[in-house]
Amino acid sequence: MSLDSSEALEKRLRRIGAERYHDKHPFHALMRDGKLNKGQVQAWALNRYYYQSRIPIKDSALMSRLTDVETRRIWSQRVLDHDGSHEGQGGIRKWLHLCERLGLDRDFVVSEEGILPVTRFAVDAYVNFVRERPLLEAIASSLTEMFAPAIISERTSSMLARYDFVDEDTLSYFKDRLTQAPRDADFALDYVKRNATTPDLRESVCKALLFKTDLLWAQLDALHLAYVDPKMPPPGAFVPRDA
Amino acid sequence: MSLDSSEALEKRLRRIGAERYHDKHPFHALMRDGKLNKGQVQAWALNRYYYQSRIPIKDSALMSRLTDVETRRIWSQRVLDHDGSHEGQGGIRKWLHLCERLGLDRDFVVSEEGILPVTRFAVDAYVNFVRERPLLEAIASSLTEMFAPAIISERTSSMLARYDFVDEDTLSYFKDRLTQAPRDADFALDYVKRNATTPDLRESVCKALLFKTDLLWAQLDALHLAYVDPKMPPPGAFVPRDA
Repeated sequence: MSLDSSEALEKRLRRIGAERYHDKHPFHALMRDGKLNKGQVQAWALNRYYYQSRIPIKDSALMSRLTDVETRRIWSQRVLDHDGSHEGQGGIRKWLHLCERLGLDRDFVVSEEGILPVTRFAVDAYVNFVRERPLLEAIASSLTEMFAPAIISERTSSMLARYDFVDEDTLSYFKDRLTQAPRDADFALDYVKRNATTPDLRESVCKALLFKTDLLWAQLDALHLAYVDPKMPPPGAFVPRDA
Repeated sequence: MSLDSSEALEKRLRRIGAERYHDKHPFHALMRDGKLNKGQVQAWALNRYYYQSRIPIKDSALMSRLTDVETRRIWSQRVLDHDGSHEGQGGIRKWLHLCERLGLDRDFVVSEEGILPVTRFAVDAYVNFVRERPLLEAIASSLTEMFAPAIISERTSSMLARYDFVDEDTLSYFKDRLTQAPRDADFALDYVKRNATTPDLRESVCKALLFKTDLLWAQLDALHLAYVDPKMPPPGAFVPRDA
């Protein structure tokens, strides 16, 4: 399929999501189907905290590359969503809350000790990608938000139904994301459709999204290997007490 | 004077301001004393627009290096002050307004054409400094805000009194800065006092402030050479029509 129009680009982006977003990963299927134990869900939450903590850093880095006030102002909403406008608010705080509700020690989570090295490599690669790659690609790498509402709905309802250690309060982070993610995705999709004006640029947008789906996938791969099968947590990594 | 305490550090920082802040520059003295013509004031406003436009970029870059949510949230206020929370607001918009009130064409100002190459070099050096130097130094380079209220008061009152092409509406940008600058400076000064815990680190803080006073000075030097004495605007630079 040639990328000769913005419509063809959008179609390709949606196909990438359908084929390679991490809702297709076996670890997600296990989580959705209620087949993880509490320790495995803890490991997921702990590692994902590192990802969450770097999102506003990634978005600030992107803002620092935008010379247009309007685009910068719109993008700043993402930072605000994660950091909150006041202490005790924002997505990072809510993710910490999720971790605590799952029985993890707050200081341990914030220390970033115990996360899998691959989590760090993948997340840091994302931040560096956004710092260094052409702006169009940096923005395109956020397009996984297009596919977030589906995975959030699926994950939330099934976790509530299938894990007795999870309740609505635990998952309050995701409630906000259900409105934030589509708003952010709409803006980014419109941006890349307007700014990727040649087949080569559209190809670079697709590659940026693939880079992102790869790094989300790699994080679940690492969790799977360490905590599901064959259960080989690397030296220094979190060892769940709750099986 | 040895930098063996945070009080000694603050004292040294204030001395650097007293000796080397750009309120000591001949160009500022001419502006204050009503001795610039309209074209010279236009050249100043045009070149400073580039500086203004890069401040939120610099501050976003700094935010992208902060891993602490609280510090990042406080720092984000600076970006908001310059970009505004809605279209038509914020410091950059107000600086554009100042330029327009001085008779400059808005599109010309925004195009960034006509600025002095030294303006670009100095401002870009500032952004790069904040991106690349140790975080403590990046934050310390903002400490010129400590000295801003004095120069703003002096500049505002004398410009209103001495230039018939300047009125209060023209200078509305500075009204906001009179409260913003001390708030920002207090935070940054407290930060460096707490975090520069050795004489070497305190020395690095002083050097960062010197770097900043140097680059503010260099911008007025360039304006002076191009538009005051010996009036040698480089090829491509703005040529005032109003003498």
